[in-house]
Amino acid sequence: MDVISVIRTKRDRGELSGEQIDWVIDAYTRGAVADEQMSALAMAILLNGMNRGEIARWTAAMIASGERMDFSSLSRPTSDKHSTGGVGDKITLPLAPLVAACGAAVPQLSGRGLGHTGGTLDKLESIPGWRALLSNEEMLSVLDGVGSVICAAGDGLAPADKKLYALRDVTGTVEAIPLIASSIMSKKIAEGTGSLVLDVKVGTGAFMKTLEDARELASTMVGLGTDHGVRTVALLTDMSTPLGLTAGNALEVRESVEVLAGGGPADVVELTLALAREMLDAAGLKDVDPAKALADGSAMDVWRRMIAAQGGDPDATLPVARETHVVTAPSSGVLTRLDAYDVGVAAWRLGAGRARKEDVVQAGAGVELHAKPGAVVTAGQPLLTLHTDTPERFDYALQAVAGSFDIAPEGTGFAATPIVLDRIA
Amino acid sequence: MDVISVIRTKRDRGELSGEQIDWVIDAYTRGAVADEQMSALAMAILLNGMNRGEIARWTAAMIASGERMDFSSLSRPTSDKHSTGGVGDKITLPLAPLVAACGAAVPQLSGRGLGHTGGTLDKLESIPGWRALLSNEEMLSVLDGVGSVICAAGDGLAPADKKLYALRDVTGTVEAIPLIASSIMSKKIAEGTGSLVLDVKVGTGAFMKTLEDARELASTMVGLGTDHGVRTVALLTDMSTPLGLTAGNALEVRESVEVLAGGGPADVVELTLALAREMLDAAGLKDVDPAKALADGSAMDVWRRMIAAQGGDPDATLPVARETHVVTAPSSGVLTRLDAYDVGVAAWRLGAGRARKEDVVQAGAGVELHAKPGAVVTAGQPLLTLHTDTPERFDYALQAVAGSFDIAPEGTGFAATPIVLDRIA
Repeated sequence: MDVISVIRTKRDRGELSGEQIDWVIDAYTRGAVADEQMSALAMAILLNGMNRGEIARWTAAMIASGERMDFSSLSRPTSDKHSTGGVGDKITLPLAPLVAACGAAVPQLSGRGLGHTGGTLDKLESIPGWRALLSNEEMLSVLDGVGSVICAAGDGLAPADKKLYALRDVTGTVEAIPLIASSIMSKKIAEGTGSLVLDVKVGTGAFMKTLEDARELASTMVGLGTDHGVRTVALLTDMSTPLGLTAGNALEVRESVEVLAGGGPADVVELTLALAREMLDAAGLKDVDPAKALADGSAMDVWRRMIAAQGGDPDATLPVARETHVVTAPSSGVLTRLDAYDVGVAAWRLGAGRARKEDVVQAGAGVELHAKPGAVVTAGQPLLTLHTDTPERFDYALQAVAGSFDIAPEGTGFAATPIVLDRIA
Repeated sequence: MDVISVIRTKRDRGELSGEQIDWVIDAYTRGAVADEQMSALAMAILLNGMNRGEIARWTAAMIASGERMDFSSLSRPTSDKHSTGGVGDKITLPLAPLVAACGAAVPQLSGRGLGHTGGTLDKLESIPGWRALLSNEEMLSVLDGVGSVICAAGDGLAPADKKLYALRDVTGTVEAIPLIASSIMSKKIAEGTGSLVLDVKVGTGAFMKTLEDARELASTMVGLGTDHGVRTVALLTDMSTPLGLTAGNALEVRESVEVLAGGGPADVVELTLALAREMLDAAGLKDVDPAKALADGSAMDVWRRMIAAQGGDPDATLPVARETHVVTAPSSGVLTRLDAYDVGVAAWRLGAGRARKEDVVQAGAGVELHAKPGAVVTAGQPLLTLHTDTPERFDYALQAVAGSFDIAPEGTGFAATPIVLDRIA
C-alpha cells in the first residue's frame, strides 16, 4: 500500500477500497503519511466525493484510531449536541448546562474555530482560568458532579480526526460533506454518548449553503449514528444571518450568560430551547420543560458550577478588545439582509479565528451587531462594531463587511426566516 | 491576501488573479505558505485546471522567485533539451555529449525521479564519485571546457519550482498540464538557454496518455518559451513501451554508454539522433550530422570528459543490485505489448524511485527487458529481470508487471509504433 496510489485513486474519481481507507487513516495517525499528502487527498475527496460505503469505512477507521469512552457508570442518560458550525453560534454554552439542569448528563466534547466559524473552546477560554483540556477522569468527574462538561476531546479519542480537522482548517478543505460527516460522527461515537442531536446549519454562514446539501449531510450523519447504536436526530437550522448579536469569543460568552440569566436575543433563546427539547426527548426525558430551567435560574446554577469545576471564575470580568470601529447605516430603511458569512470572515480577520493552525486567537476580537434583519434603521446609526487588539486589521475586516448588508426603503415587506427549517431522524 | 482564499478560488473553479499567483508563489518560497496548503492548491489546479493567462503568470512568478543565468559569454550557441519523463528515458545521457561534440554548448539542468519515471541525476549518481551539485561557476566552467554539463539546477534558480516539484512528487499532483508546463519552462527560461527542444512523451508510461493532451502540453510550453525569447520546438514521442532495454539508474547508464560506443538499442539511437538534429538546427548548426559523432567516438570522448569534470570515474564499475528475479514468457508467440507504466512502477517499487521525497534511491535497482514489442518469444524464456537490493520488494513489483505484457499467437500481425509521433514549433 502506498499513499500516492490512494491519492491517485480518488483524484481519478475511483472508489477507495476498505483496505486503502484503513491504511491511510492509520498511516496518517502514525505520521507515515505526511500532512501534505493528506491535504492533497482531502482536496481530491472534496472535489470528487465519497459514496456512503466509503464514508462509513472512513468513519470506522477514525474511531478505531483511538480509544472509546464509556458513560454507562453514570446514573443519568447521556445526550450530546453537535453543531456543524456557524457565525455567532454560541448555543452550546447555555444549552449544555440547561439540559443538565433538566436531568440529562451532557458530555460536550467541543472543537476550536474552523475557517470563518468560531469554536466553542476558543470562546470558553476567554473566561479567566478556564481549562479546555481535562483527563478522562476529570471529565467524568465534572460530568457526574455537575451534570454537564464542555471540554476538548482527549488525545486518545479519534486522534486521526484531531489531526485531520486541524489540517483541513488551513488547507481550504473544510467544506466536504464526507469529511464533515465522518469527523463529527467519529468523535461522537467514540465519545460514547447514548443519544445525539445534530444542529446542521444552512445558509451563507454555514458550510452547507443549500437545504439540499444540508439534508445530505444530516442524513449521512443520522445514518452513521444509528448504525453505531447512537439515537441520532438532526435539526436543519438557518445560518444566513449571524445567531444573536455577537460573533467572537468573549463577546459570545457574555451573550450566553445573558441567555442563562433569562434574557438574551430571541433567536438564541428559541434555538437553545428547540435543541434542548430534542436532547431531552432523545434521552427519554420528554416531559421536562427546559424553559422553566432558564426562568428559575437552575441552568445558570449548573453553568457556574461547570465553569468553576474547570478552573474558571464565573464572576470574572471578560476580556475586552483594545480597539473598536463602528460601521454605520449609510441610509434609512429596513435592514433586509445581514450576511452571516461576511460577518464571520470579518470576525476571523479581526483575530477571533486562525489563519494557520498554530495561531493564537484574540479573546476580545469579533463583531457586535446593533440590528438584525427586519429592523428599521436610521442613516448614521451604528450597524456593527468591530473589536480587535490589532487595529491594523480593521481595513481587511471592513472589506469583508462592505457588502454584507442591504437596506430597503422603509415600508418594504420583510419575511423573517424561521430558525428551524427541517428535522431529520 | 491569505492562502485559504487562494485555494478556495481554484477549488471553486475560479480564475486566479495575477496578484494571487504572485503572492502564493512568493509566500510558498519564503515558507509563509505551508507544504500542506500548497499541495491542496496543486490538487485543485490538477482537477480544475488553469487557463493560458494563469499559466503564463504562474511561470513568470516562478522565474522571478530566483536568479537568471547568462550564457552570453560562451563562444558557442547554447541548446538544451527537456523530456517530460518516461520509463527507460536515458536519452539525456548520450544526447548532451553528442550535441556538444557537434559544436553546440549544452547546459543540461536536470531533475530527479518524479513518480514512476526515473530522474537523470539519480541515474548519473550511480557513477562512483559523480556530483550533481555544482556552483554556477563550476557549471559554466564545465560547459565552457567540455561543451556539455548535466547537473542539478542551483538553489538560486526558480527555487519556487524546486520546492513545488519535490512536493508534487509525493502528493499525487504530478499529472497536471499547467504545473508540468510551468515547472519545465520556468527552469529552462531562468537557465538562459538560447534554444530548447522539448521531448513530450505520449502513452501509458508518460504523464500525457493521449496525443491530444501531449499536443496541449507541447503547445503551452512552446508558447511560453517563444514569449520569453527562447527558440523552442517540441517533438511528441512514443512512451507506450519503455525506451531501450533498461529502466533503473545504473542499468540505464550502462545502456547509454553502449549507445555512445556506437551500439545500443535501435529505438534509443533513433530518438537520440532525432533530438540531436533538432537541437543543432535550433542552435543554427543544421549542417552537422550527429550520426558521425556517434560513429567516430567524439561523442564518447565528450561524455568521458564531462563525467570526469564532475568528479566521476568513467571507467568505474557500475553498482549491481544484490538480488535478481526473472519473469519468463508464459506462452510462445509474438510480444504485442510491454507496458511502459507497469515497468516504470515495478522499477520504482524495486527501489529505483522514491515513495517520499527524503527517500534514497537504489543505484542498482530496476527492470531489464529481454524482448521488445514485435519480438517472437518462446514459452519459458526470460522476458524481464527485476533487480533490487531489498528482495522483500519483489512481490510488490511482480504485482505491477503481472498484466504488463500480451503475447499473441505466432503469425499475428504487429505494427510497430514510430518513435516520433509529431512535431510542434
